[in-house]
Amino acid sequence: MQVRVDITLKTGVLDPQGEAVHHALGTLGFDGVNSVRQGKVILLDLAETDPAKAEADVAAMCEKLLANTVIENYAITVL
Amino acid sequence: MQVRVDITLKTGVLDPQGEAVHHALGTLGFDGVNSVRQGKVILLDLAETDPAKAEADVAAMCEKLLANTVIENYAITVL
Repeated sequence: MQVRVDITLKTGVLDPQGEAVHHALGTLGFDGVNSVRQGKVILLDLAETDPAKAEADVAAMCEKLLANTVIENYAITVL
Repeated sequence: MQVRVDITLKTGVLDPQGEAVHHALGTLGFDGVNSVRQGKVILLDLAETDPAKAEADVAAMCEKLLANTVIENYAITVL
């Protein structure tokens, strides 16, 4: 079973990577870009076949490892 | 206008970050994880209001900066 996790910074948290991309886009002549926010997407292939159990397992993985819950939000999608 | 870009490694390309996450999950006792692939998600806030123009602009940004098209795929979603 495939599960997708989208990890993004919480609103208000400074995003240095996004700022760097924003600056670089401007340097390359792409104006009209108001803001850039960068996050992670993690695709997990699990042996689990029950969607609810898979989602619960992945939530535990997010809490323990995949996301820094102080500054990041995570969204789990069972594919 | 908000545009989302999902950047993932092409199939067959080694994913050291994914391997590291996979190993760490095993160490934390999460077995049953067959594979882990990690990518980037970039949220762009554009001044452009025409969806087709916005998508074309972002495709050009991907080709020039956001994605390494030799080893990465990118998917653009106008939100």
